[in-house]
Parts: sequence; structure tokens; C-alpha cells
Amino acid sequence: MLALLLAEGPLSRVELARRTGLSSTAVTKAARPLLDDGYLHELPPERTAPGAGRPVNPLAVTADREFFAGVKISADALYGAVCDLRAGMRATAGRPLGDDRGPAAVGALLHELVDELLDKRPEFRDRTRHLGIAVSGDVDRTAGRVRYSVLPGWRDVPLAETTARATGLSVVVENDVKALTAAEHWFGEGIGAEYFALVTIGAGIGSGLVVNGRLIAGAYGVAGEMGHIAIDPAGPRCHCGQVGCVEAIASTGAVLAAVRTGTGRQDLDFDAAVRLAREGDPVARPVFARAGRAIGTGIAILVNLLGPERVVVTGEGLETYDLFGEHIKDAYAAHCFKAAARCPLTLRPLPWEEWARGAAVLGIEALFP
Amino acid sequence: MLALLLAEGPLSRVELARRTGLSSTAVTKAARPLLDDGYLHELPPERTAPGAGRPVNPLAVTADREFFAGVKISADALYGAVCDLRAGMRATAGRPLGDDRGPAAVGALLHELVDELLDKRPEFRDRTRHLGIAVSGDVDRTAGRVRYSVLPGWRDVPLAETTARATGLSVVVENDVKALTAAEHWFGEGIGAEYFALVTIGAGIGSGLVVNGRLIAGAYGVAGEMGHIAIDPAGPRCHCGQVGCVEAIASTGAVLAAVRTGTGRQDLDFDAAVRLAREGDPVARPVFARAGRAIGTGIAILVNLLGPERVVVTGEGLETYDLFGEHIKDAYAAHCFKAAARCPLTLRPLPWEEWARGAAVLGIEALFP
Repeated sequence: MLALLLAEGPLSRVELARRTGLSSTAVTKAARPLLDDGYLHELPPERTAPGAGRPVNPLAVTADREFFAGVKISADALYGAVCDLRAGMRATAGRPLGDDRGPAAVGALLHELVDELLDKRPEFRDRTRHLGIAVSGDVDRTAGRVRYSVLPGWRDVPLAETTARATGLSVVVENDVKALTAAEHWFGEGIGAEYFALVTIGAGIGSGLVVNGRLIAGAYGVAGEMGHIAIDPAGPRCHCGQVGCVEAIASTGAVLAAVRTGTGRQDLDFDAAVRLAREGDPVARPVFARAGRAIGTGIAILVNLLGPERVVVTGEGLETYDLFGEHIKDAYAAHCFKAAARCPLTLRPLPWEEWARGAAVLGIEALFP
Repeated sequence: MLALLLAEGPLSRVELARRTGLSSTAVTKAARPLLDDGYLHELPPERTAPGAGRPVNPLAVTADREFFAGVKISADALYGAVCDLRAGMRATAGRPLGDDRGPAAVGALLHELVDELLDKRPEFRDRTRHLGIAVSGDVDRTAGRVRYSVLPGWRDVPLAETTARATGLSVVVENDVKALTAAEHWFGEGIGAEYFALVTIGAGIGSGLVVNGRLIAGAYGVAGEMGHIAIDPAGPRCHCGQVGCVEAIASTGAVLAAVRTGTGRQDLDFDAAVRLAREGDPVARPVFARAGRAIGTGIAILVNLLGPERVVVTGEGLETYDLFGEHIKDAYAAHCFKAAARCPLTLRPLPWEEWARGAAVLGIEALFP
């Protein structure tokens, strides 16, 4: 019921009962403590049509009842946001990482960043109890530990515990793609979808999967690792130890490495590789095309196994979409099994702040388990 | 509650309440109509310990209250079974397909087979209302249609409707691997697992996936198609139109074709190819090894995306397990992402009758939706 109000509210109790399948008594009963605690409020009565009975007071979420901090840890920076109860972005801030990417140094910066965010408004400081942290790789959310993350290069870091001690906030740590998927499922493209997938492309490649309305966590904490499915035995070796992973072919790092090797120019950076490809360079262009095919094949595999209703493709990799978009779509169409091909791909740009919003939504979920 | 009794019964009402999280009033209330209809019965009272209060009457499923027919349509035969309410196999029968594999001819044989099964015992005829049919390929269970099945070579066949008309039974048609997975989840290795996968290898390769305790159906009716995920751009073309599917490398047909091509002996049948490989033939042996690697890679991809608690590998392909078992395991270990590797593979032989039992369980599920 709350998820519905958070995503779509305000709604009348009658409408809520209809949409959730609960009795109106149950809705009234469930709403009572939330009204008392200030999470919900009643809007002024509205009479929908003449003679339609007594006026109804729609229920609405009190967005600023509580605030939620979120931080995304990326390879070279921290991105932070404060959101309200409806995941509305109220403030953002960022901080570049220093040379020391170890857990202690990054933890200190993270603490500073959270302080900066909460200091922006007195009500943030007063009414923020939850901090969500999103980081790439293998995260044990229950234990609050980062088991393995290649971007900052960590292994088995008890991030929730140390950050909770430093900030005094209740901390949830989650894989960044899973956090973003949950945010999209509660507040974005995934609202109401029983089967939904979000794929991110860029420095890392991953996916978050919603099945039967719930985010898949995996029995051992690993799920949705689309970047680490092996699609080419003749492909390059991946940092994860496998050969021919999607990420080893199609991450920005993998694309840059292949362009450098192919052109013999080790001095190129990613932007230069993009420029070469856009100019039609006979080495650089096929590297992007191959990356696109790998991504399209990976998404088709995901769709053949999971059967989502729709797939959202996002991430900073979309900035070079002109170079591989058609290859993603062609490979996707070629590798979908029969009716699975009816699942649409939606491409959506994703500013860095959205990752931080995804992290903040972890706190909203923690409030309403 | 019924699922628990079906899988594990008999249990006392107190025990049922504890296991399901329902109140004992709710258990008593839910049990009443089932007792009245004869699906449950009370066992004689047992006093668990001296002074442990008034004696309890455990509840048990009345296995022969109703019977369920199931038929698996394979490439060259029909396999049928009658099961009781606890999926106990009570009778089996089979029938080879004739030269005509069209829906009308196969439908007539199927009707004959069901008659033969129900004629085996008067109570089967009296107390069988449901028939489950399992067939490989793309099945629209809701519409009762086989959209595409390569084994009998069908496209868009309204099998549920025609069979219901012919037999007078309520008919459910489902993908064979999904039916088997549901049977395993309700009555076998999958009992109680939140995340569970069953992989079948043989003439076809597929998988059934249980997430959050429910079988994944896919938003467009396609899910678990492990046989049709593309793992090698340099691999052979598949009957589904893709290149490099697991099934195009590792099905019995694909293995036979590769051995024939490699040896130049088009006269070989599958048994002869197996014999060659067991004798260490330098062409045949690597073909089986490659098939094993493809299967292991496919399972690892599934595990990296879905994160099951355990995977059961079964199917008639296991008869040649000696030729590729180690390759399955090696490729699986090499391609699992981090903690996903903790997911155990269990290998289990599967007699043909088990497929028919899987089909019969479709009827049990239909009884308790």
C-alpha cells in the first residue's frame, strides 16, 4: 500500500483498497499508525462527482517527514544525494577520490561527504536516519560487507559497520546496480512490473532483475551479473578470472584496451578512442561494434532466461551510443528466443546523481521492509 | 499449507501453524473444507509425550482421493503416467509415435494412451479429472497452445482445447522442463528452496527456474531457455536461428552431427558415436568434451544471473556422463562469478516416466492454485 502511495499517491482509501485488493477497513487500519507518525497526511476533501456520496480525503505521503542520504562509490569519485520519502532529490554533492583508494581513506571522505550533505539544511540533519551506500561488485547486503569490488579494488570490507560508527546513521550497503534497479522498480520505469530488468553499461556492466515483483538477491548474494557471463571462448580474459565475459569485451576499459592494442597507440584515452571511432577509424570502429554485439547478446541471454516485461539500458556507456546502438539492437534481436523478442529495450541516459539517488532509496526500503 | 502436507505430511495442526506462520484457528478453518471433501483425513490421535496436553490428530493428505494423468510428448514416443495426490506413481504406459508427427495423429495417439491409463483401474476412471501434457519448446500455458516445438515439429497448436474435447478432462499444457521443475519443487529436491534451478540435457537442453519460491514463467511465456543462450560466436547454427546456442553444441543431435562431420561417417548413430568416444577416438572424444564445456558454461551463466541455492542436472543426456561430466564441472567452476561458485550441482538420472509424472503434477497444481 505504501509502495503504491510512494510511487503514485495521493490516492483515496477506496482507490487504495481497489488497487491493493485489501478491504477498506484494512486500508484504514494500516493507514492509522502512518498518519499518527506523520508519514501520511490527509488532503482536503474532494467530491469527485455531484451526488457521489460523502467527500473523501485522499491520503498522501508526507515527502519531507524524513530524509535519506545516499552515496555511490565509483572508481574515481563519490557521488552523494539527499532524497525525500518519495525519492525526490533535495541536494547533491560529490568528492573526487584521492590516490589512496583503500577502505579507510575512502571511508573518511565518505564521512565528510555525508556531513556536507546533511549540513545543507537543518531538517536534513534532524530528520535523516538512513544512509545507503552503493558500490559495484559482490556485496553482502545482509552482513553489510563489500566482498569484492574491482572499482575501488576492495576485498571483504565491513563498510556498513564502520560507516555506521562514523556517521551515527543506520547504513545499508548494496551492489550499485541492484540499488538502482530497486529505485527504478519503486519510483521509475519499473513501477508495477512483475518482471523487470535494468542493465547498466560503462566502466562496469551489470544488471538488476525483478521477478514476481521482487529484486533477485541470489542465494549466495550473487545475481544479475550480466557483465560476467561468458559469451565468447575466443574473447579476452576478464579481471574476474574468466575468459570472454561481456564486461571483458564491452566495458569502457575493455574497449579502450582493444583500441590501444589495435592501433598500437598506448597513449590514447577513452575520449580519443571515441573520436577515432566517430571519424570511422577502421580499427576503432569495429571495437565499438563488437562491444555493442556483446551487450546485445548478454541482454538476450538475460531475457531468454528471465523473461522480463521490459529492459531498461542505462549507464554512462550510453554517451557513446551512436557507436554501438545498432549493434546492441541487432545482436539482441538475433539472440532472443522466439516470443522473448517481444520484450522491448528502453535506452535511458543516467546522470551520476541518479546512482546516489538509488543508494538513498535503500534507506526508504529499509523503512518499509 | 497444502503444499507442505503434500510434500511432507502428515503433520499436526499445531505443527502446520508453526511451519506456515498461520494461526491455529486459520489452520483449522482452512482444513475444514478439505476434510469435508475428502482431500485430507485425520490420523488416529497420538500423544507425543506424557502430560503433553490433549491428544492431537495429525492431518494427512488422502493420496487416492483423486488421480492425475500426465503425458510427455517426446520426439518419438508418448510417455504416460497416473499419479495420486501426493505425486506417487500408480501406473505408467507408453506409445511410439508413428510416421505422422502432426498434431492430429499425435492427438489421436494421446487420447488412446490416456484411455489405456485410465482403464487400468476403475478408480482412475472415476477419480481423474485433470490431464497434464508436457512438451518441449515454447508453450503458452494460459492459452493452452504449443507455440513452437521442434521435437514434434509443431507451430501454434491449440493442444489443450482439442485434448479436452477428446478426453473430457481438464487439460493443462506446459513446457516439459517447467513441468518437471514444478514437480521437483513441490515433491522433490526443490522442496522449500526459495531459489532453485533444474537443468535437463539430452535431445533438448533447457532449464526451469524457481525464484522466491515460484516458477518463473516469463512475461512473454519464455523463460529458462538455457539451451538457447548464445555462448560461442564461432559455434554452429541452431535450429532456432541463432548461432552458438548451448543446444546447438551440446544436444545429442548436435554431438552426433559433429562426430559424423569430424569422422566423415554419416552412417553413425548416437550409440556408435558414444562407443567411439569411449574408445578414445580423437575426433569423437573432443566433441563430447566441448558439449560438456558448453553445458557447464550455460549453467554458470544461469547461476551468475539467478543465484539459485542449488542446481539439479538431469535428463537422458546423463547416460553419457562419463564422457563429459568433468568438462561440465570444470567449465562451471571456471565461469561462476565469485560467491556464485558455492552453488552445488547435483546430477540425477531421470527415467522417462519422471517426465510423465512432471506432467501429472500440473493437474495437482491446477487443483490448488
